[in-house]
Amino acid sequence: METLSSVKKMQDLALSKNKAGIRIGFVPTMGFLHEGHLQLIDVAKKNSDWVVLSIFVNPTQFAPNEDLDRYPRDLARDQKLAAARGVDVCFTPTAEEIYPGGDQSVVLLTELTRGLCGPFRPGHFRGVTTVVAKLFNLVRPDVAIFGEKDYQQLRVLSKMVEDLHFPIEILAVPTFRETDGLAMSSRNVYLSSAERQEATHIVQGLRKAQEALAKGKTSSKQLIQLAKEAMVSGGNIQLEYLEIVDANSLAAVDQVIQPSRILTAVRLNQNRLIDNLPLNP
Amino acid sequence: METLSSVKKMQDLALSKNKAGIRIGFVPTMGFLHEGHLQLIDVAKKNSDWVVLSIFVNPTQFAPNEDLDRYPRDLARDQKLAAARGVDVCFTPTAEEIYPGGDQSVVLLTELTRGLCGPFRPGHFRGVTTVVAKLFNLVRPDVAIFGEKDYQQLRVLSKMVEDLHFPIEILAVPTFRETDGLAMSSRNVYLSSAERQEATHIVQGLRKAQEALAKGKTSSKQLIQLAKEAMVSGGNIQLEYLEIVDANSLAAVDQVIQPSRILTAVRLNQNRLIDNLPLNP
Repeated sequence: METLSSVKKMQDLALSKNKAGIRIGFVPTMGFLHEGHLQLIDVAKKNSDWVVLSIFVNPTQFAPNEDLDRYPRDLARDQKLAAARGVDVCFTPTAEEIYPGGDQSVVLLTELTRGLCGPFRPGHFRGVTTVVAKLFNLVRPDVAIFGEKDYQQLRVLSKMVEDLHFPIEILAVPTFRETDGLAMSSRNVYLSSAERQEATHIVQGLRKAQEALAKGKTSSKQLIQLAKEAMVSGGNIQLEYLEIVDANSLAAVDQVIQPSRILTAVRLNQNRLIDNLPLNP
Repeated sequence: METLSSVKKMQDLALSKNKAGIRIGFVPTMGFLHEGHLQLIDVAKKNSDWVVLSIFVNPTQFAPNEDLDRYPRDLARDQKLAAARGVDVCFTPTAEEIYPGGDQSVVLLTELTRGLCGPFRPGHFRGVTTVVAKLFNLVRPDVAIFGEKDYQQLRVLSKMVEDLHFPIEILAVPTFRETDGLAMSSRNVYLSSAERQEATHIVQGLRKAQEALAKGKTSSKQLIQLAKEAMVSGGNIQLEYLEIVDANSLAAVDQVIQPSRILTAVRLNQNRLIDNLPLNP
């Protein structure tokens, strides 16, 4: 595995692969890799000839009060894990090279970013869409892989690709979970052991909604109420939002009669955690 | 020359040229071609192996009170002119195919669009940057050609390409003028013969500033005053703006001691006309 930090070298190499007809698979990450990331790499390997993993903690997607400075980093470990999983190039650009002339050029979506995490993380999604558009132009992938853990991000990026006509296929990979169900996240290292225990209530709540739907309850209001009760039962989880939306448009639905998704963001003391599950009637 | 309106066919063809190592030259236009456009094609021919001309009257770059509906169109004539000049593909997409899922995905620049035409044409530049980003992804050019007539647009698009890391070279072509100096524009057909006559005062004014600079006057205030007097002397030209700015950053300059540009937009009865000239000390 080769590690590149120069954007010019990355782009030149990618363009030469394009010309050679080699199918490029791309997994963009912020590093501190866990098994969830590694499964994205596996999907990239299966769907391309040459896999690029980027590791870039993108400053523009953090709001001023967020955890940019303390976001966990361990490049040496990430490189080992990526190489073992068969990544061909680990791309580790600097912010100076990604934003050479400041950050005035922006890619944004006005609608899909309006709800759910949007209001709680001002500027987050435009940071994500901007950096991913830049990375797409540098890595020139044929296929890019994203996790369903960040479901709103997945929908936003899929829509960006479609609307801006990037010739890129987006593949979505189901959330990888710890054995007790907690969605894997680089941010889970922030949790104390008591918090780690209580955090399992999040997915337990979402599963209550899935189970009730399977038994024929389709009212979003009722499903949300069931999920909420389970989530807050430990006493420390506070909901930012808990919503059921159309799986594609992310518009709120009253009845789960089409492919839908239940999504949540919670506060657990100083930590912010997100999770979501499909609701298929 | 082939004419394509399908975005998928255009992109598939462009990707096949990329793979074959054929250098793609691109001239994006809104059609109703004049000699200025044709000179952009000449530059594209000299700098690439395969030239795509796009003709698309982009609705998102017109403000609600502007001339979208009456913008002049003559596709049959454009096709003849383009073919005679050696264009390989004339790309004529529909708005439905360029904006398949609405217009929520936007590319914008926050700073270079703030002054000059920006405040007078709300939404104009984000319409331009968005559609050009889409066209770049469809046509996949190695080099794209723009006229200096729309100087702010040229700077905005150059900065977009640099910031978003599009692997595209931007070439700028000096404004082509009628024999009496009027900058060629598809919108000149709107002018009555009296207006057409008075419109020559615009470039005459800008040239007064150039001449005074050549004689050693470097004060922007004085140069602007000289230009203004000549421009408004016919009685019907009203200035939207007349400014001297740094040729790259478009920031206003007090003294012309670095490569600069004098730019103007005027109203002549119902018409809006723009022009600009270099000021090189």
